[in-house]
Amino acid sequence: MTGPTAARRNDYYRRLDPHAMAPLWEVLGDLVTPSPASRCRPACWRYAEIRSLLLESGDLISAREAERRVLVLENPGLRGESRITTSLYAGLQLILPGEIAPAHRHTQAALRFVVEGEGAYTAVDGEKAVMREGDFIITPSGTWHDHGNESDRPVVWLDGLDIPIVSLFDASFAERHPDEAQAHSRPSGETVARYGSGLLPLESPSGRASPIFSFPYAKTRDALDRLGKNGTADACHGIRMKYANPVDGGYALPTIATFIQLFPRGFAGALHRSTDATVFCVAEGEGRTVAGEETFAWGPRDTFVVPSWCPRRHEVEEEAVLFSFSDRAVQESLGLWREEREPFGGTWT
Amino acid sequence: MTGPTAARRNDYYRRLDPHAMAPLWEVLGDLVTPSPASRCRPACWRYAEIRSLLLESGDLISAREAERRVLVLENPGLRGESRITTSLYAGLQLILPGEIAPAHRHTQAALRFVVEGEGAYTAVDGEKAVMREGDFIITPSGTWHDHGNESDRPVVWLDGLDIPIVSLFDASFAERHPDEAQAHSRPSGETVARYGSGLLPLESPSGRASPIFSFPYAKTRDALDRLGKNGTADACHGIRMKYANPVDGGYALPTIATFIQLFPRGFAGALHRSTDATVFCVAEGEGRTVAGEETFAWGPRDTFVVPSWCPRRHEVEEEAVLFSFSDRAVQESLGLWREEREPFGGTWT
Amino acid sequence: MTGPTAARRNDYYRRLDPHAMAPLWEVLGDLVTPSPASRCRPACWRYAEIRSLLLESGDLISAREAERRVLVLENPGLRGESRITTSLYAGLQLILPGEIAPAHRHTQAALRFVVEGEGAYTAVDGEKAVMREGDFIITPSGTWHDHGNESDRPVVWLDGLDIPIVSLFDASFAERHPDEAQAHSRPSGETVARYGSGLLPLESPSGRASPIFSFPYAKTRDALDRLGKNGTADACHGIRMKYANPVDGGYALPTIATFIQLFPRGFAGALHRSTDATVFCVAEGEGRTVAGEETFAWGPRDTFVVPSWCPRRHEVEEEAVLFSFSDRAVQESLGLWREEREPFGGTWT
Amino acid sequence: MTGPTAARRNDYYRRLDPHAMAPLWEVLGDLVTPSPASRCRPACWRYAEIRSLLLESGDLISAREAERRVLVLENPGLRGESRITTSLYAGLQLILPGEIAPAHRHTQAALRFVVEGEGAYTAVDGEKAVMREGDFIITPSGTWHDHGNESDRPVVWLDGLDIPIVSLFDASFAERHPDEAQAHSRPSGETVARYGSGLLPLESPSGRASPIFSFPYAKTRDALDRLGKNGTADACHGIRMKYANPVDGGYALPTIATFIQLFPRGFAGALHRSTDATVFCVAEGEGRTVAGEETFAWGPRDTFVVPSWCPRRHEVEEEAVLFSFSDRAVQESLGLWREEREPFGGTWT
Repeated sequence: MTGPTAARRNDYYRRLDPHAMAPLWEVLGDLVTPSPASRCRPACWRYAEIRSLLLESGDLISAREAERRVLVLENPGLRGESRITTSLYAGLQLILPGEIAPAHRHTQAALRFVVEGEGAYTAVDGEKAVMREGDFIITPSGTWHDHGNESDRPVVWLDGLDIPIVSLFDASFAERHPDEAQAHSRPSGETVARYGSGLLPLESPSGRASPIFSFPYAKTRDALDRLGKNGTADACHGIRMKYANPVDGGYALPTIATFIQLFPRGFAGALHRSTDATVFCVAEGEGRTVAGEETFAWGPRDTFVVPSWCPRRHEVEEEAVLFSFSDRAVQESLGLWREEREPFGGTWT
Repeated sequence: MTGPTAARRNDYYRRLDPHAMAPLWEVLGDLVTPSPASRCRPACWRYAEIRSLLLESGDLISAREAERRVLVLENPGLRGESRITTSLYAGLQLILPGEIAPAHRHTQAALRFVVEGEGAYTAVDGEKAVMREGDFIITPSGTWHDHGNESDRPVVWLDGLDIPIVSLFDASFAERHPDEAQAHSRPSGETVARYGSGLLPLESPSGRASPIFSFPYAKTRDALDRLGKNGTADACHGIRMKYANPVDGGYALPTIATFIQLFPRGFAGALHRSTDATVFCVAEGEGRTVAGEETFAWGPRDTFVVPSWCPRRHEVEEEAVLFSFSDRAVQESLGLWREEREPFGGTWT
Repeated sequence: MTGPTAARRNDYYRRLDPHAMAPLWEVLGDLVTPSPASRCRPACWRYAEIRSLLLESGDLISAREAERRVLVLENPGLRGESRITTSLYAGLQLILPGEIAPAHRHTQAALRFVVEGEGAYTAVDGEKAVMREGDFIITPSGTWHDHGNESDRPVVWLDGLDIPIVSLFDASFAERHPDEAQAHSRPSGETVARYGSGLLPLESPSGRASPIFSFPYAKTRDALDRLGKNGTADACHGIRMKYANPVDGGYALPTIATFIQLFPRGFAGALHRSTDATVFCVAEGEGRTVAGEETFAWGPRDTFVVPSWCPRRHEVEEEAVLFSFSDRAVQESLGLWREEREPFGGTWT
Repeated sequence: MTGPTAARRNDYYRRLDPHAMAPLWEVLGDLVTPSPASRCRPACWRYAEIRSLLLESGDLISAREAERRVLVLENPGLRGESRITTSLYAGLQLILPGEIAPAHRHTQAALRFVVEGEGAYTAVDGEKAVMREGDFIITPSGTWHDHGNESDRPVVWLDGLDIPIVSLFDASFAERHPDEAQAHSRPSGETVARYGSGLLPLESPSGRASPIFSFPYAKTRDALDRLGKNGTADACHGIRMKYANPVDGGYALPTIATFIQLFPRGFAGALHRSTDATVFCVAEGEGRTVAGEETFAWGPRDTFVVPSWCPRRHEVEEEAVLFSFSDRAVQESLGLWREEREPFGGTWT
């Protein structure tokens, strides 16, 4: 707008400024959009292309100095913000034989999906769990955790954290453990015995996160295999399951929904979209995912992200398994989450 | 850091860049802080100082053109971001006699606290509620709503919305209503009759927000008055109550916690802090609030904000009533909310 | 059955007996029936026919001696068991001017619906509520309660208790208060101010029952009146609402569901049945209820009961209001409750 | 009481009778007791003493004719009522090689704990589960179920049902399946793959009961073994766990709480009591349980019952494992359940 009105308004805006006020009508359209319109972009990190760079970090800095030796996967639309989606952080962590990533705890909840190697461990509140390819491990908000590599080869996993969520709410607390590695006061497998056998203690634990913090791939894969045999695959998602909290049946973490899905041989999924931007990591097999204008051909260990409300579909020739995570857990609890399948409706509800 | 190591690392970082990757260890300390460390600052907007500017907006733009004629209250630490805290939006809305703020709906939930005037209305999904000073009104996510002023004087209210939350999760949907003002298909007071009489329908409504969208001040004040007589005031908060959803006893909105509190005559509150940055608006009386380094002397219609984890205390000579809102509703559902009272403990838990 | 097989079996049954064992196959059909088959019968107590007998009890025993001067309404099919349905107790309580029904508490939850008179009170955990015709009052499990009559006329109310439920689970505890009438340590109306104004305290009360224990008829009637004007009456139930717990939106008592319903002028309800045997008490107006083979013409203050799964329908010429209660609260929590509307389906699901 | 007053009252009671009314004050003390006072008695059924009688039933009636060939365990205080406690039914079921207990469904929920034999099966809604000693199996309310014995030896299990609960609420529905044995339309182990692997489907099942209906002893025993090694045994209950519903973390059945507990070597438990009368069945080992005046020396396959609020303690020389069930699930949902440990308090709360 130009002319006298514009001039008067601009003068007015200048006079508002010292009072820390501004006109809503100049920005309303950007704040409240007709449909999700973020800077988040579809993107894919092919493991073959970045593995050598990742290993090189091992020569540049120690796990001790780095505290966590991680390459952040920055969404191309959000460079410099340490985010893979608007609400989530992701990175690839390298730990070398004999190294320890020192014990600490923080408000931010973290997940790990093992991409390469075997024989590392994560310890959570005094209990150790070994890490193998495909294993899914969580370190919930406030839990002491450290990692170590007792094998003779590098181990790499995908980290996912709710850093931007905790940041939005200004609720970050963190501290270092007095010891580099916490004492392992509980035998490995105790939480599984206590919470993962179909039995539960008479008193539930207080927290909102799953007390079971390790979900071995062998067990997960076996379950998918059995379900795949019955051929009741969803038209969009194949056989898709969530990692669950045995105490309440909810998501394993209250802030990050985590999933594993099997695409049966020859699966050609239908187009769909949802409001939870989703990070996928390939556990097994090869395939293609169309995400808006982009098409990603993916294979084992690749990571890719699909933004909120971006139409997507998956297809494979041979059987494939994808791990994924998103903020759907929060969106559902706030009543924000929405999914739509082709044909896409005209209305926003 | 300088020298060869720094050089090698910088060279390495340059090679990471085209792969949309970056070293976590350079930013970890900023992402995961020992305690909340946001740019949000304590601030106060004195109504007497801004009222004339607010009324001036009535000459510069119509409600129809503006869609909502609102001056955004921008936190001094977050200028240009249309936020009063990191997670919440607030503004002062002006509607002139005979004007209509046209009907629309959006994912973002909104609250209104009437600051000046009487005889305007808010209509939600076909039911009208009149607006008087001190009244608290919500327009939950997805509900059609419009406002009008049927009085002969300007009406002003404080708006609070969860815009930054919906934005973080990329879940914004919005649309204009075909008509400027929606048809008023339900008699005023129907939802109160259905949900606010101590009775409830046998079938609950689907939504997460309170079906009662208007909480008149007269009724609220009367309840505070009765409770105040019993003198069971909290040492920090006086007589503090939440606006509730009659269907589940939770907060009236799933994303914004809203409160009303009475400080009895001579109240000198204890120092405390919590992780929910809180916006206060003065309904009655005068007092002082210490927020970190700042001290705000406030009176009727003033608005002030206290950041997350910033130590605060309130004191009054005569009885006073404060309305307030924060993101505590979300923080509690995610397990993030924390409060501490003086003496402040050393540990973060 | 007769003959050698019967003889052998009877001999066998005799030898089982000393081991406290018996053959299931002789009784299975009575234990697990194709549809509800209880001894509970439809019945009606017309107030005009029993009022004089009820008042006569005032000459025979004092409230103090009786502890509670109540005539139990015994279901004709369950005589001698002090039950109006298989799971619930009901009786008519008389309290004379100046009398006190002494303070006690017990596991059994009780409800009172005032049938005649005005000016009595019920005190619950130190707070008094006055009792007028049509008022609904609860004394939840474990709460200290006493009644008094400060008027100059007899006061009568309908009592409903979960005695048979507590008895089935062998969980009865009870004790007398050291004083005849407990001290009234909380001002009348405090719980309404705290829980009934649309506001709630930040900390919820521990119990499962509504902290509001008095639901005055004037307020209830006004809500029904407003809802009736919109003419959205259910084909079977008219305008039917539940008395609710403001803290969770559930039933006011966890063991007894309580309802109030308005039949608009000329209402002729459809036939229906449900698994919760229901006790009705007439607050206003006259009408007819068909219950299986029976038809009850009812008027103000009459009480009638309809057994589980017994087909029923209601009709009125002029507007009428019915209070009712049943064990539906428990049946819903256990997944047992079922309702069917005409035409009745062939299958049991 | 005698004399004129008694005479007048008795005359009055006679005149109440035709109106289906009776004086509460004559029975109040029996209806509302100071503490649980039921007719339920401690009792023990030693398997060695009843096994031959149980097997004899195989010669007297076929599974087909009996529908379920079961010897009801009647509480000595409740003879003729088909109850082992006031609220629960229990019996020992025999199924011979080649027999089928025909498919049916009913409102009543059932549990089975395998006492002797191996190679029988239970099919629930089209899925078969094999039955071995110590296995725990449920057939929830409304599920089609049949049993068969594909081994060459008799198989015996303990049945537990909520028959008296469903009976109190008059909510029994039942029907025979058109076929003797339902078609096995789902592969064995499907529900375990879907709900028992740490994963869950994105959509939860509707029912209140656990979708997993078979809990093999081998898995249960292994979990107890691991937990026992940590030596964190409860002073009264040893290592006691509940069978859980993976979908919500609640009890496997909404009406019957089921438990498994390990007493470590040399365990001498403390005296305690609770309001849920409990049925125990010995899975392994030998020990003694004091229940009120009684002391039961028990061994493998024995069943015993402890009434509500009856003080009890357990002791063993060698390690032992007990299965148990009670109505605690209902009592907790209704707010009735209470437990007390020695020293027993004077007050009832």
